[in-house]
Amino acid sequence: MPYAEGVPESVLSDVVVLRYNNLEDLETRLPRVSDDVAGVLVDVMPARLGLVSCDPAWLETLWTITRDLGLLLVSDEVITFRLAHGGAQEHFGFDADLTTFGKVIGGGLPVGAIGGDESLMRVFRSDRGAPAVPHSGTFNANPVTMAAGCATLELLTLDEVERINGLGARLRSHLTAIFELSDIPAHVTGDGSLFQIHLTAETFRDYRSMWHSVTAKPEVKRRQHELYCALLHRGVLLGEHGVGAISTPMTHKEVDLFASAVEDALSDIDVA
Amino acid sequence: MPYAEGVPESVLSDVVVLRYNNLEDLETRLPRVSDDVAGVLVDVMPARLGLVSCDPAWLETLWTITRDLGLLLVSDEVITFRLAHGGAQEHFGFDADLTTFGKVIGGGLPVGAIGGDESLMRVFRSDRGAPAVPHSGTFNANPVTMAAGCATLELLTLDEVERINGLGARLRSHLTAIFELSDIPAHVTGDGSLFQIHLTAETFRDYRSMWHSVTAKPEVKRRQHELYCALLHRGVLLGEHGVGAISTPMTHKEVDLFASAVEDALSDIDVA
Repeated sequence: MPYAEGVPESVLSDVVVLRYNNLEDLETRLPRVSDDVAGVLVDVMPARLGLVSCDPAWLETLWTITRDLGLLLVSDEVITFRLAHGGAQEHFGFDADLTTFGKVIGGGLPVGAIGGDESLMRVFRSDRGAPAVPHSGTFNANPVTMAAGCATLELLTLDEVERINGLGARLRSHLTAIFELSDIPAHVTGDGSLFQIHLTAETFRDYRSMWHSVTAKPEVKRRQHELYCALLHRGVLLGEHGVGAISTPMTHKEVDLFASAVEDALSDIDVA
Repeated sequence: MPYAEGVPESVLSDVVVLRYNNLEDLETRLPRVSDDVAGVLVDVMPARLGLVSCDPAWLETLWTITRDLGLLLVSDEVITFRLAHGGAQEHFGFDADLTTFGKVIGGGLPVGAIGGDESLMRVFRSDRGAPAVPHSGTFNANPVTMAAGCATLELLTLDEVERINGLGARLRSHLTAIFELSDIPAHVTGDGSLFQIHLTAETFRDYRSMWHSVTAKPEVKRRQHELYCALLHRGVLLGEHGVGAISTPMTHKEVDLFASAVEDALSDIDVA
């Protein structure tokens, strides 16, 4: 289904969408179309899907099947690269052929990057005539972004990743305890230094279950908006979908302050 | 023709390429395909085409025909917005339905924007449920970029646009005089505060003529690279394709210094 009006028919026919965490799609549909497919793009913990990690068995099968079928596996780590020093692939134990990056590698400034083996990346080489895939751009290697990104990544040491991941676990555990005592149906998802607050008791495992539990429920969307406003009134700016990240300047102090703000904010939310 | 390897066939079949400055394509080909076309995207002075402005008569026809056929006219002003306070449309005297922006509006930081009439832009509205065209993004309204862009545009007053356009005219005139006295075949194109140096006597009016005169000529490409290196040795960093822009901090001093550096650099270039 097109995500926006005006999406050309060809975009739909050029892309095969496999249901997340669905083994049947991987084992039956993917081999059927593999002759026409260049690769499989996966985000192992998509924020648009509620920041829920994929099933390890599904990921293992995806990894094996793409290798067997000769398809490239592309890991979208724009959000999840921060989960481990070696990114989501280290954290979840798999290898992708190409990896996409963003967010944290730009230190807060607009950025995007792609990386992979020399055998793939050489399509961008321009030192032996026109590259197979030209990749010029106004802001390629933009010096301000590169400086901010390097500074951020230098601070994101092995120890710091471990420390902020620990803060993330602490926060999710605090929030879970708070939600258990509240009348507002709520749960928290995420891993490492990433978390997402959902004001519903329903959990999700793919886009459709998330859509039915959140997007299609006006009362859930209203509560999420009320939480957003209630936190704003308490000096906390959280993403409107409840997604947040612990960054290296933060300590127990900020994390506990945030948990208290959420606990306090719940009293502003209409349970009806 | 695809610009890169791996471009899906559907991209080619979804796009109609009209030859630049070619009235026949406008008057004959465009009406033939107009039922399947949403709009026409034009850059009235494309850097990839040698920073040569389109013919006024061609632009007038493009404007009339798109209106008559009910097609949107989209003006790509990522580079050319700086030509006048009202952008390329004011400078060249036409009206587009949508305008794209970049570069100068971000004050040197990565940025992009699109603008148009409310009747078109409302596809992005999210205050009445899901928008027709969702447009969320990590760096939408990125505060650092917005601050840099505002500061730059506040400095780019009516008077300043006139002043830097005058500096551009002065530079192009200096360079033309220098090239006339040189053994190296060369000319300069551009308008307002924008210029591009071409180390060939041939002029161009569309992508193909530019391609045959520059891209397909190893000696021209070699000379362009030699100019780039010779300027770098003289403390001047120019784009590898010879494109440059005069910005508000510059005065006669920088412009004349640049012209002298080019004059001096020509002695490093092999005429053979």
